[in-house]
Amino acid sequence: MPLTRIDMPRGKSAEYRATLRDVVYQTLNEVAGVPDDDRHEVLTEHDPESLHIAPSFLGVKRSADALLIQITFNAGRTVEQKQAFYAALVTGLEQRLGLDPADVTINLLEVAPENWSFGHGRAQYIERD
Amino acid sequence: MPLTRIDMPRGKSAEYRATLRDVVYQTLNEVAGVPDDDRHEVLTEHDPESLHIAPSFLGVKRSADALLIQITFNAGRTVEQKQAFYAALVTGLEQRLGLDPADVTINLLEVAPENWSFGHGRAQYIERD
Amino acid sequence: MPLTRIDMPRGKSAEYRATLRDVVYQTLNEVAGVPDDDRHEVLTEHDPESLHIAPSFLGVKRSADALLIQITFNAGRTVEQKQAFYAALVTGLEQRLGLDPADVTINLLEVAPENWSFGHGRAQYIERD
Repeated sequence: MPLTRIDMPRGKSAEYRATLRDVVYQTLNEVAGVPDDDRHEVLTEHDPESLHIAPSFLGVKRSADALLIQITFNAGRTVEQKQAFYAALVTGLEQRLGLDPADVTINLLEVAPENWSFGHGRAQYIERD
Repeated sequence: MPLTRIDMPRGKSAEYRATLRDVVYQTLNEVAGVPDDDRHEVLTEHDPESLHIAPSFLGVKRSADALLIQITFNAGRTVEQKQAFYAALVTGLEQRLGLDPADVTINLLEVAPENWSFGHGRAQYIERD
Repeated sequence: MPLTRIDMPRGKSAEYRATLRDVVYQTLNEVAGVPDDDRHEVLTEHDPESLHIAPSFLGVKRSADALLIQITFNAGRTVEQKQAFYAALVTGLEQRLGLDPADVTINLLEVAPENWSFGHGRAQYIERD
């Protein structure tokens, strides 16, 4: 279910970008209760003039590697689950990519289960209830 | 009102993409209660490494033609209306483009009527109430 | 907090696009209660076949300069605040860029404060409560 939109600076290797997507998926799967294989990602690279991430908002010092991750998923996760997801995601990105945790800005959009169709024109999540 | 974001594989013809957009609009108009001429679309083509759609999530077998359609519109449609929209959309895409219904993943984002301004800095939907 | 996605026609100068982003940020800051330096923007240029904005929906006549601005921010602003934001934004864009107010379509997505992480894997907005 999650639909992940990653907006990032142009110029990283294909391997870097693939690992970035892997870490987001794996963290959603392991920490945020997302099912196996439930993976939908759009990654867009930008020139500096088309991607602006506040360089020091809230006292966090961000570098030229800063990126945005916006994830649409079902409503219902608790505040604690969201906090655990954020923490695990930046840890994974630091361990796997060397990405500074300061450089990861995350936003969540929440929807109802009937707001998804995963093919065949069906609303699979509500059929399963 | 709907704002439709289509993320799809690069390489389809301009005619294919135009018809794809037409079918989404016509289905919104005919099945989901969207007014005539209320049409706002952003279509982005991606290389395989930048667009990932789960190839077999929920047992649906997706091909290299798989695409994502994310639509922002006003809250208030019923579950049954959403289901009818999904079904009609994949049927239209199959009939007009030969697109396999398995290849169409849809997500809906819902907002309040005052969350739109259609020019002149006005919030037209709430002025009309 | 706001995450602003601007989708616009290809071909405007870098200066035009920078000023466009500046005006959106400044209006959010001055009229919509967004903190200083709280600025996150993704701007994407499109060919005509990939960006469709209804040319005359609701009787508003839009030109080839028409663009879409979709902003994700925290829920809680009143209808009046949203209306004031729309009005101030088109005024600023007209004054600074000569952009016709008819050409500015705006959509707002609203989320809970815990749906943001601004680095370090923390949910800063709820820590501050």
